Amino acid sequence: MKKYTNIKDLESIPNTIQEAIALKKNPYQYASIGKHKTLVMLFFNASLRTRLSTEKAAKNLGMDVMVLNINDSWKLEFEDGTMMNFNTAEHIKEAAQVVSQYADVIAVRAFPSLKDKAKDSSDLVLNSFVKYTTVPVINMESAVAHPLQALADAITIEELKTIHKPKVVLSWAPHPKALPHSVANSFVKMMSEIDIDFSITHPEGYELDTQITKGIPIEYNQQKALQDADFVYVKNWSSYSEYGKILSEDSNWMLNKETLGKAKFMHCLPVRRNVVVEDAVLDSDASVVIQQANNRTYAAQIVLKKIIENLSS
Amino acid sequence: MKKYTNIKDLESIPNTIQEAIALKKNPYQYASIGKHKTLVMLFFNASLRTRLSTEKAAKNLGMDVMVLNINDSWKLEFEDGTMMNFNTAEHIKEAAQVVSQYADVIAVRAFPSLKDKAKDSSDLVLNSFVKYTTVPVINMESAVAHPLQALADAITIEELKTIHKPKVVLSWAPHPKALPHSVANSFVKMMSEIDIDFSITHPEGYELDTQITKGIPIEYNQQKALQDADFVYVKNWSSYSEYGKILSEDSNWMLNKETLGKAKFMHCLPVRRNVVVEDAVLDSDASVVIQQANNRTYAAQIVLKKIIENLSS
Amino acid sequence: MKKYTNIKDLESIPNTIQEAIALKKNPYQYASIGKHKTLVMLFFNASLRTRLSTEKAAKNLGMDVMVLNINDSWKLEFEDGTMMNFNTAEHIKEAAQVVSQYADVIAVRAFPSLKDKAKDSSDLVLNSFVKYTTVPVINMESAVAHPLQALADAITIEELKTIHKPKVVLSWAPHPKALPHSVANSFVKMMSEIDIDFSITHPEGYELDTQITKGIPIEYNQQKALQDADFVYVKNWSSYSEYGKILSEDSNWMLNKETLGKAKFMHCLPVRRNVVVEDAVLDSDASVVIQQANNRTYAAQIVLKKIIENLSS
Repeated sequence: MKKYTNIKDLESIPNTIQEAIALKKNPYQYASIGKHKTLVMLFFNASLRTRLSTEKAAKNLGMDVMVLNINDSWKLEFEDGTMMNFNTAEHIKEAAQVVSQYADVIAVRAFPSLKDKAKDSSDLVLNSFVKYTTVPVINMESAVAHPLQALADAITIEELKTIHKPKVVLSWAPHPKALPHSVANSFVKMMSEIDIDFSITHPEGYELDTQITKGIPIEYNQQKALQDADFVYVKNWSSYSEYGKILSEDSNWMLNKETLGKAKFMHCLPVRRNVVVEDAVLDSDASVVIQQANNRTYAAQIVLKKIIENLSS
Repeated sequence: MKKYTNIKDLESIPNTIQEAIALKKNPYQYASIGKHKTLVMLFFNASLRTRLSTEKAAKNLGMDVMVLNINDSWKLEFEDGTMMNFNTAEHIKEAAQVVSQYADVIAVRAFPSLKDKAKDSSDLVLNSFVKYTTVPVINMESAVAHPLQALADAITIEELKTIHKPKVVLSWAPHPKALPHSVANSFVKMMSEIDIDFSITHPEGYELDTQITKGIPIEYNQQKALQDADFVYVKNWSSYSEYGKILSEDSNWMLNKETLGKAKFMHCLPVRRNVVVEDAVLDSDASVVIQQANNRTYAAQIVLKKIIENLSS
Repeated sequence: MKKYTNIKDLESIPNTIQEAIALKKNPYQYASIGKHKTLVMLFFNASLRTRLSTEKAAKNLGMDVMVLNINDSWKLEFEDGTMMNFNTAEHIKEAAQVVSQYADVIAVRAFPSLKDKAKDSSDLVLNSFVKYTTVPVINMESAVAHPLQALADAITIEELKTIHKPKVVLSWAPHPKALPHSVANSFVKMMSEIDIDFSITHPEGYELDTQITKGIPIEYNQQKALQDADFVYVKNWSSYSEYGKILSEDSNWMLNKETLGKAKFMHCLPVRRNVVVEDAVLDSDASVVIQQANNRTYAAQIVLKKIIENLSS
């Protein structure tokens, strides 16, 4: 594998899921595959789960890891031809090539502004690294995608499903802050690639990018959508059509035990209790959020393993 | 050992001190005991000595270490049943369980507010991690205790004592900022557990929690208290009864060479020169503060060793 | 080698350059020389290249690395005899000795204020660490010198030169911010030590410390200075005589393809495009800035190797 910026980079999703599950049983079986290979993790935004799980995954493979939190002291220029006499101190062309000198793999986190739809949609920071680095790039959540999360989610569903083709529903939930679409986007793409019965429910106005949701049933009545679901993935996102806006904080969309029914509750975390989902759900056996978080390690580890193998070959 | 949040977690303090001294002579004798074990260090407050010594201790045992500085970008909720629609983004229930997925041991630093006595006394952050993690927790200084410092202090006294039962005095000193009671608390508890002649001196109004100092002589006259002392441990703390207040900055309580007499000078560092103690003391052979700082490594290392051994068994 | 604060610490510069080039061909040939040795990297200022290249160099040698970003939460006192009752929490005497307890080598970055010429010239932070630590110190850019950069630059010239004694010119360039003299200082010193034809060009008023430039030709006409150059090293610095001032932002001094001629273009990075140098130069084969950045690793690695060898002997 040459990079992992999007779930499309995976050659076979079902095989990758099985390999990750096998890795989880014995995380140190490839403990020297990453020897003398360095992962540089660049965070343009804060991170807890992604930081710890990806660093752990790399170390499980024997890699060296260097973590750099990019803050205001290092302002990058992304436009071509600019006269850089104001705010930006270094152009992405140099930055990406330079980091490539010290890394065998570069992982990047860069969130959207949620203000400029065209710019966010171009996934400027991530794609600039892809364009100018000379080493593989891993997406640790970009403006439009969070493929490591989606892979962890798919692993979790595979581990927990009790029927061949479970019903999985992605449900919007309210949130006091405007949030990105990345998690929802990658989850939708991932669910479209595996053999399940998938649908989406959200209030009108919260339609995701239709290029991503094309062909997937959308139901505006949450209760109806969730009926007989096996897995309910709850997540807030801001409006995509009225880009970055909060159109509703309607607490009827908060997931509760009744609406969940017999389904498993999924969420990428962090989650706001009694806003996105009620305590009774999170504190019950129906919640699999901790298992999802755990699977972040094995999602990252299988991705790193495939990338390292490709480096050496 | 299942955790180290308080010196009471040590089965035998005298044995632990001896084991730490043996470890110091050959720090790499257990260099593979921590292989494929990860220590996650969470700092809710800044750290120099604790950060470096604990990380070094873990690496001396062959552990992987991940350090996370928690700042305002990750606000945790500690109350139960809250509707999290304001400031906090994640509940400690999820946070602690999630970090447990990536760690074999979690070390936490979280200072008191010095504003809310009841809340500080409950040691909310540390104890919440203990409650919700599934892995051992190490206290890297909490609202009420600093047991790694106290163990390093006890090691230092054991190394340097020239008589069987030395006289050790804890003396309050002035400071321009209101400081926590954690170092003093743990030092008092530790000194109560080893075979020494121990007393405390401070101005009236600076009494520590009487549950901790019960049975220990308190002398309000510093000069009298320090007479014929073998070790003088100097430390500022704010008032406990008038919680978090600075009642006095009386510079007569600054330790000087005359008052110190023939005793060794101890301090946990950082120390403000010519406020807490005069230059003449710190720059003399009587000062053992650097040796104390060095022993932080071996205190952390013996604690980690005991915790790792318990993990494997 | 006992420390590397200045290029004078290198016993033989030509030999060191050759050893670094040999190391670059097989970076892991000394992969266990640093086993159980710890490098502590202290950053008083932000860092990208220096952070990543030095950490990588240390890991290539098998060292453990601990990185500490020093911020406002840890204010150091450098003056002797001060009553520390205001801003500073710890004296460099304790700080340096304490860090020495956890490190086999300490690397320090501390920029100048550009406001107080006497204080900056004394290189207070770096030299205080040298004075009070008990372990070797590496300069990761101080107020007056950046010897790791200069060594990487010399390696790059050695790799790329096509004639025995190439013509190398250091050219000032405009910049919107007042920048330190450290890179220019160390480059000038390094160029004075190797067998090249070296000169400097800058507008009047931008003379560097004459103690450093003594005997080196200075030409105020950039075009004339650069004629038939083999390497042009471009760098901005603020005025040294009118200390820290920006006297000119004259864009005629921006390097362009015509002025560069057939020379290689060098810069320490980060570089402001179309301010310091035009796109056409940076995007051409004449630019060797990425190779310079890469050589930072081998400069740091040969320095660390020599220091480690001296530790063990």
